[in-house]
Amino acid sequence: MPVTPFRNVAILGLGLIGGSLFHRLGTVATGYDADPKTRAAAGRVADTVAEAVTGADLAVLAVPLPAMAEVLDAVRAAGYTGLLTDVTSVKAAPRRLAAEHCPGATWVGGHPMAGREQSGFAAADATLFDGCAWVLALEHDTDLDAWLRLASLVTSIGARVVPASADEHDAAVARISHAPHVLASALAARAGTDRMALTLGAGSFRDGTRVAATRPELTAAMCGGNANAVRDELDALIDQLTEARRRLDDPAALADWFRAGHDVRSQWPPTPGEPRQVPASRDALLTLGRAGGWITAVSPDGATLTAHPPSDF
Amino acid sequence: MPVTPFRNVAILGLGLIGGSLFHRLGTVATGYDADPKTRAAAGRVADTVAEAVTGADLAVLAVPLPAMAEVLDAVRAAGYTGLLTDVTSVKAAPRRLAAEHCPGATWVGGHPMAGREQSGFAAADATLFDGCAWVLALEHDTDLDAWLRLASLVTSIGARVVPASADEHDAAVARISHAPHVLASALAARAGTDRMALTLGAGSFRDGTRVAATRPELTAAMCGGNANAVRDELDALIDQLTEARRRLDDPAALADWFRAGHDVRSQWPPTPGEPRQVPASRDALLTLGRAGGWITAVSPDGATLTAHPPSDF
Repeated sequence: MPVTPFRNVAILGLGLIGGSLFHRLGTVATGYDADPKTRAAAGRVADTVAEAVTGADLAVLAVPLPAMAEVLDAVRAAGYTGLLTDVTSVKAAPRRLAAEHCPGATWVGGHPMAGREQSGFAAADATLFDGCAWVLALEHDTDLDAWLRLASLVTSIGARVVPASADEHDAAVARISHAPHVLASALAARAGTDRMALTLGAGSFRDGTRVAATRPELTAAMCGGNANAVRDELDALIDQLTEARRRLDDPAALADWFRAGHDVRSQWPPTPGEPRQVPASRDALLTLGRAGGWITAVSPDGATLTAHPPSDF
Repeated sequence: MPVTPFRNVAILGLGLIGGSLFHRLGTVATGYDADPKTRAAAGRVADTVAEAVTGADLAVLAVPLPAMAEVLDAVRAAGYTGLLTDVTSVKAAPRRLAAEHCPGATWVGGHPMAGREQSGFAAADATLFDGCAWVLALEHDTDLDAWLRLASLVTSIGARVVPASADEHDAAVARISHAPHVLASALAARAGTDRMALTLGAGSFRDGTRVAATRPELTAAMCGGNANAVRDELDALIDQLTEARRRLDDPAALADWFRAGHDVRSQWPPTPGEPRQVPASRDALLTLGRAGGWITAVSPDGATLTAHPPSDF
């Protein structure tokens, strides 16, 4: 079945991510934001959620997780039954919320791995998604045609689509984003007990704590929305630190411990292999994502996708 | 007593730090390195430790901690009894080694907080110390005149001298350098178990793991040389992570936990207050260092120093 492009995309929430998508999609997009000042700044907007989703063939929930239930209720009340996606940093919790609060729409969860220190519509930037990884959640019950339409849109604006189940996504982001935020904050808090330490802080402190400056409410919502995966990851990290601690008096054993992280980091980011065509099958896509690969294009007939598997795939 | 400048500085070890000091000091410096290729590259060098320290009024041990005992033995065997300092990232262990292996020299431990991803003489750079914090260890039994002479030299090349006892220094660097290296490596090793995570890694992963790419033997020597302080710091961090883990299901309590690190990091680096003159007294200097201050000049008569206390000192 051909992948038809979207003609009318409702973007609900015009913060950094929603605003950037609004700029990138141009006249195809209708925006909405709860804040009248943001609506006035954006211009091409609806005054209510209902007005925004009426006639839309895609609705993007670009609000933080704590606001999602309320917006989903408004989308349902407006009678919207089309394709619905989101951009939050967890994927299991929004999936449950969508099933509960807006069961008539077709849900495909999403997460662009794009962030900035600044937030809000003023920081929005049409180039934010250039080359960024954008997870589209693919479950056993996801509508594959809807997923392919969304993948086509996301790749058309220059992002790399990573297929993943919600649980795989949530475990991965606990590892590479949520736990790093917790560790950065713990390091900063400890240094704050010692003024000499703050004066001696140099490169490893600067970089290791950078994201600790994020607004605490945002970090708490992000980590709390992925509590199970973050708990598992913190347990594993505490085990690792306990092991390093045990080896402190044995230089060779300690160097062996450091080698694992060294080997990973010195080969990061991963090198993509040659692009190849893969069939639009759930299993092929999930296998690609698990191996660290991504998609950069969907064929017009929706039958094949251009995949960039890792070089040793 | 006037602070006399050094006329002949022996630099033992011409890696990144020793080599940079060698370039910065110019013709006052005589270099030595165990590697003949490095000696050939440096030019103005001695062929042995004994030749380098003969006639020197300052000897700088610029070798890693594991090599220090052997070089101290060579310095002692050469009959050197002048001022002796080092540049390693811990201060208690070198102090013990100097007392044991070279008791006839006058020991003042040092640590410039200057690093680069590259190491070795080829990476040496005369501007490496511009504005960098350089701890000079000050104990109850340190020769204060020797400390002031060294402080005069270090400030004259543009570094900021932080007075600290060896134990205060070691606790501080465990907090802002050694523990961050351990955490970076743990994060990288965990992400290495999940290829999708490596593909999704973005800013927080990149910065939070940057120093995990350091050579494992270097990191192990650094952390192992400060085992007691690093153990205490890892214990405190494990307690912090355990507390964050406990709060994952309570957004408000979790945001409170993140606030401590947020408040520290968003006010870092510390703002210096107005410069003021402080007397050359052990207590005044240690009080300044504990408060997060530093020294940028020593008066020619050695009686007062230009201090930059924190703004609320």
